[in-house]
Amino acid sequence: MLNFQFCSPTEFLFGRDTESQTGECVRKHGGTRVLVHYGGGSVERSGLLGRVLSSLDAVSIPYFTLGGAVPNPRSGLVYEGIELCRRESIDFVLCVGGGSAIDSGKAIALGIHYDGDFWDFFSGKTGAPAHPILPVGVVLTLPAAGSEGSTASVITHEDGMFKRGYNIEQFRPRFAVLNPELTYTLPSYQTACGVSDMMCHIFERYFTNTPDVDLTDRLAEALLQAIIYAAPTAIREPNNYEARAQLMWAGMLAHNNLVGVDREQDWASHSIEHELSALYDVAHGAGLSVVYPAWMRYQLDHDPMRFAQIATRVWGCDMDYQHPERTANEGIERLTAFWSSLGLPVTFAELEAKPEDIPALAAKTALGPDGLLGSFRPLDVKAIEAILRLACR
Amino acid sequence: MLNFQFCSPTEFLFGRDTESQTGECVRKHGGTRVLVHYGGGSVERSGLLGRVLSSLDAVSIPYFTLGGAVPNPRSGLVYEGIELCRRESIDFVLCVGGGSAIDSGKAIALGIHYDGDFWDFFSGKTGAPAHPILPVGVVLTLPAAGSEGSTASVITHEDGMFKRGYNIEQFRPRFAVLNPELTYTLPSYQTACGVSDMMCHIFERYFTNTPDVDLTDRLAEALLQAIIYAAPTAIREPNNYEARAQLMWAGMLAHNNLVGVDREQDWASHSIEHELSALYDVAHGAGLSVVYPAWMRYQLDHDPMRFAQIATRVWGCDMDYQHPERTANEGIERLTAFWSSLGLPVTFAELEAKPEDIPALAAKTALGPDGLLGSFRPLDVKAIEAILRLACR
Repeated sequence: MLNFQFCSPTEFLFGRDTESQTGECVRKHGGTRVLVHYGGGSVERSGLLGRVLSSLDAVSIPYFTLGGAVPNPRSGLVYEGIELCRRESIDFVLCVGGGSAIDSGKAIALGIHYDGDFWDFFSGKTGAPAHPILPVGVVLTLPAAGSEGSTASVITHEDGMFKRGYNIEQFRPRFAVLNPELTYTLPSYQTACGVSDMMCHIFERYFTNTPDVDLTDRLAEALLQAIIYAAPTAIREPNNYEARAQLMWAGMLAHNNLVGVDREQDWASHSIEHELSALYDVAHGAGLSVVYPAWMRYQLDHDPMRFAQIATRVWGCDMDYQHPERTANEGIERLTAFWSSLGLPVTFAELEAKPEDIPALAAKTALGPDGLLGSFRPLDVKAIEAILRLACR
Repeated sequence: MLNFQFCSPTEFLFGRDTESQTGECVRKHGGTRVLVHYGGGSVERSGLLGRVLSSLDAVSIPYFTLGGAVPNPRSGLVYEGIELCRRESIDFVLCVGGGSAIDSGKAIALGIHYDGDFWDFFSGKTGAPAHPILPVGVVLTLPAAGSEGSTASVITHEDGMFKRGYNIEQFRPRFAVLNPELTYTLPSYQTACGVSDMMCHIFERYFTNTPDVDLTDRLAEALLQAIIYAAPTAIREPNNYEARAQLMWAGMLAHNNLVGVDREQDWASHSIEHELSALYDVAHGAGLSVVYPAWMRYQLDHDPMRFAQIATRVWGCDMDYQHPERTANEGIERLTAFWSSLGLPVTFAELEAKPEDIPALAAKTALGPDGLLGSFRPLDVKAIEAILRLACR
């Protein structure tokens, strides 16, 4: 167990009709001129955007709107948002949508008072920000990225289509409104992609070399079990409040670092997936459902007992004490079958990705300064290629 | 699943040597004149108090000390602390110790800028405070009460020995320093009492009538499993860092409401126990290990399947699908045997409590305005007596 600091100060408002409190929340957290940032037309069509704007009107807070955040959100809109916020003296960024709108809003909040290019932080050119970052609030419509409670933002730069993440404590939203009813209209494929995304946020923390992390292991397993139980219901019955609610809260807890505080974390699969998303513009969760089982098969022999633990505790596999690796393998097969059953791709072909792109994908993946990726068993470019080839089967 | 708000903004510094950062934390959170509040002489003898004061010296923050917080902390010391803080224009309360020092410090922080008697809030005479409450910081030495991350304070008024709890969001500490090494010197009995205390914080939330709370059920079960696994090691090997660390973090998570956000909670056993503590001055955890199994036996027929769930998932009992109540009962027996194995009392006699006091204890227990206690199956005075009689067996 490692020393750690943990502070998750976001105020969560969870439940039916909570979006009507958005204006009050903005005021409570100091917003006086607001950028309302969102994605596609669905929040307009559903009437959600109108209700959020009304709640700002009700507390007499002026706002400016900026739509257009797309999945794998782009740098272009971030630059546009920064310009708009500077011009209008914005002091609070309110994101209405899923991970794309939130991540894009966080990047805007980071860039406004920075003299240089906000991308300096994502590219690693610049260290911790010394300038003020605007507070961010969230009205969530898609449980997946966990950005509503996390320190993370992931942006794709259009010049070269590099997808990069950046993590700072200041990115944790001041408040997040989570109404499960807002997710009823999500298509089943998007729901499923959210499920794989949140499960992978847990896996990235679960597969660690840090010993003596029993408590956070068990919390991670609890989250996974609850997600696995709720997901099929949410897909079969899109208006099932309880299943939607379980997924919505689980998605936040999967990524606010509750289950990762005390350990070395991996994140190799996320980096590998980022290149798939950037090249093919596939949903992040769909890329992950292809990459992660391959990563697991590649890494199994590094620590078969950890894979056996998750297989028994989460998937209910019988432990084969003579051949733990068989149990370990069975857990990976159960995961793959589960994701397939939700309609997710689990092979390169199902993702419509091309095996011939593998060398380029591996070459483009962002490595650490030591030329390696991840911490569980660090990967070089050859290992990344091997994982992508395993994903083709 | 109920609508909820959740905000746990405390900054946690967890691990070895973290107490050296106390002064920095006080400064970061705005303290300029500090009351350092602690309990008995052990924090002086161990050198911890000296190290904490040195860290305040290092950042040139003046402080005043007030020791003497006892288990089941008393109103007298709270009044004394309030006077001292007013006289010295204190703006930050730093608590060094366990639940007693923290709860007492919280009550002092509440009382300083209140014109009336701080007890008005604990007695229910006054509603939510409209005056400013001082920020509180913590250096924890005993994982048990969870006060380092909770909204709660429990104080015993010496005029009548009434023990009453009060909960407000402002009671959540600004920061908490958690170094498991500081718990090495805890006697095994105190360690065990901490274990039963944190387990009961989970039980009070677990036994609920709110349906569809799968995720928080599983998180609660995860915490319980980790505590049950670590506790015997911590008692057998007091200097086992990893076991001490698991208990320390679990104790916080057991009571910051992570596992209770979405549900009706009970808290009857805590109220019943408060009267035991007040009358016999027994450790809170020891009173709970006597009261809770009796409460469970009394309540089993209200929802046998919930008791069966915890028996199978936490205690590993086989589910008897024909007779779920047998599985349910077995879970209670396992709990009782576990607490006994840690050296905790589980009967009235082991607590040296007297059956003839039962009517008085029941009569004194604080009931709701409707004359009932708890929510799982609300208790009247006769039911409280019945539970206390079950505790005699």
